[in-house]
Amino acid sequence: MDLVAPSELTAAAERLDSRIMRTPLLECTRLSDELGVRTLLKCENLQHTGSFKVRGALNALLIRAQQGTLAGGVATFSAGNHAAATSYAARVLGVPAVVCMPPGAVATKVEAVGRYGGEIVFTDALVDTCMALANERGYGQLHPFDDPDVIAGAGTVGIEILADCPDPDLVVLPVGGGGLVSGVSAALRAGGSNGSGGVGGAGGSARMRIVGVEPRQANAMSHALRAGTAQPLPARPSSLADGLAAPFASARTLAHVQAYVDEVLEVEEDAIADAWWAMMDATKLFVEPSAAVGLAAVRAGLLSLRPGSTVVFVLSGGNAARTSLATVAAM
Amino acid sequence: MDLVAPSELTAAAERLDSRIMRTPLLECTRLSDELGVRTLLKCENLQHTGSFKVRGALNALLIRAQQGTLAGGVATFSAGNHAAATSYAARVLGVPAVVCMPPGAVATKVEAVGRYGGEIVFTDALVDTCMALANERGYGQLHPFDDPDVIAGAGTVGIEILADCPDPDLVVLPVGGGGLVSGVSAALRAGGSNGSGGVGGAGGSARMRIVGVEPRQANAMSHALRAGTAQPLPARPSSLADGLAAPFASARTLAHVQAYVDEVLEVEEDAIADAWWAMMDATKLFVEPSAAVGLAAVRAGLLSLRPGSTVVFVLSGGNAARTSLATVAAM
Repeated sequence: MDLVAPSELTAAAERLDSRIMRTPLLECTRLSDELGVRTLLKCENLQHTGSFKVRGALNALLIRAQQGTLAGGVATFSAGNHAAATSYAARVLGVPAVVCMPPGAVATKVEAVGRYGGEIVFTDALVDTCMALANERGYGQLHPFDDPDVIAGAGTVGIEILADCPDPDLVVLPVGGGGLVSGVSAALRAGGSNGSGGVGGAGGSARMRIVGVEPRQANAMSHALRAGTAQPLPARPSSLADGLAAPFASARTLAHVQAYVDEVLEVEEDAIADAWWAMMDATKLFVEPSAAVGLAAVRAGLLSLRPGSTVVFVLSGGNAARTSLATVAAM
Repeated sequence: MDLVAPSELTAAAERLDSRIMRTPLLECTRLSDELGVRTLLKCENLQHTGSFKVRGALNALLIRAQQGTLAGGVATFSAGNHAAATSYAARVLGVPAVVCMPPGAVATKVEAVGRYGGEIVFTDALVDTCMALANERGYGQLHPFDDPDVIAGAGTVGIEILADCPDPDLVVLPVGGGGLVSGVSAALRAGGSNGSGGVGGAGGSARMRIVGVEPRQANAMSHALRAGTAQPLPARPSSLADGLAAPFASARTLAHVQAYVDEVLEVEEDAIADAWWAMMDATKLFVEPSAAVGLAAVRAGLLSLRPGSTVVFVLSGGNAARTSLATVAAM
């Protein structure tokens, strides 16, 4: 399986320049004090459409437009942020978007699709319906993460991290289907001070660590890592971190994680809820629960931080479900 | 009653420089689209201690230190942000702080006092206990809003707004006891393109409007304006916007509002809850309900915005009560 190439990453960064927010990498002094490390936050919650997803969707559609393969529009499937991102990107390109969403999708994310002009089809058969709609209408399909252009777009987050902080000791990323962790880890390994690594790799003490974190209840990547091959989860995943509840990791994202990521951790639901509140209270940034799984891993004792080191948490999005806030209030 | 002088405001800005966060004035494009005006947010939720209050407390204690009147420490009373701000400011000056808080104070705000080393005394007799503690220990007292140095410190928010946006059409401020609205309106009138005004004043069409907003259930300033004199509310106020639940406005803050502010509006609790969510969802900034009363007034139809104009909302703080989030989740 091909990994995204450094040239694809830099091309994506040039393509997206001025079309996306150059989000800040902010230090949170309160978290720095509490955790004993310099704590930097890559604020993709402040990105257009409220998540990093717009980077991948826009990169993919811009490439198609350039190649003349944009077709009459775009069909995709997603429970959330990729749906809004694709709607936004399609509007930028001037083509229609149809998005298959599960009936239980978060209201905030459903509203966002409407805000950017996307058409929603509610269905439990996401992939099949998407394919049927694409064929019927003559649209192209856009996979939410299993697409090299989507991964390269997401990887621009990593290029920006290194531009603002050339040598982080540790970068912590939320993992759903694996698009974000694939692109960012590829960019970090291509551009950082040490270009080698991968799950189980040795690595010197000065080597940048890259850690992925996913909910134990939505652990598609850990499932694939243990099996050694991409395969769907036995049951439909569900988590407070709804943005990470992908039913499978793909062979492509699994390959990136095997090549570039040191470790993928699994966190419990109560740890996610606790960290979600802690992240918002400390940073005064509004994020979705998915953005807090890295902090959850630290607070649950699964991820130890070297005192005085520099740690980057990627805040993947800010489109929280209003109803989810009850979980925080009840704790 | 003396109003804060322009020289006191500029002196406060010089005194606080490098000791406080120069908070950003951010445009929220989504709110700009929704409201049809250029919507700018003064992000005091990102200020040290999570609210604008540190400006006033630090200005006052720095002046006392300079004058040799800091005494052995500082005693104050507050249900919230001023308590944390005074603790922080006292620590900066190297003196102890004791803070009288009501037993029902928000946990987030109680924790913040501890974080900055303040000593807490829980009591319902806030003012009397504060006075007794000050006498007993030989500490100076610091009023949360009825103090010219506290007002001048808060006014530096206005100086920074004008530095980043020299000619806003409308500035909207939350009102509790009135310290923020007093200082900021004085600074805006001193530095803006039109230096006159006040409640009921005529004003040309190009004149900057300054509007205060308070909860109807905690309407100390409207109560004082109607009475024409400072007097306590008949009953203890209570609001989701806990930061604004001052039991009275003072003669000093009333005088500033009468001199400089065009209008003080009162918003209902459900409008505050609705706007709190809307503000966080649109901006991806975590704020406390008090910071959303201005947007509540707009969404409730109490405050009309001229299409295409530039409107500044002051986000006064980000120290929300965890339990309050249940209100949002239930809507």
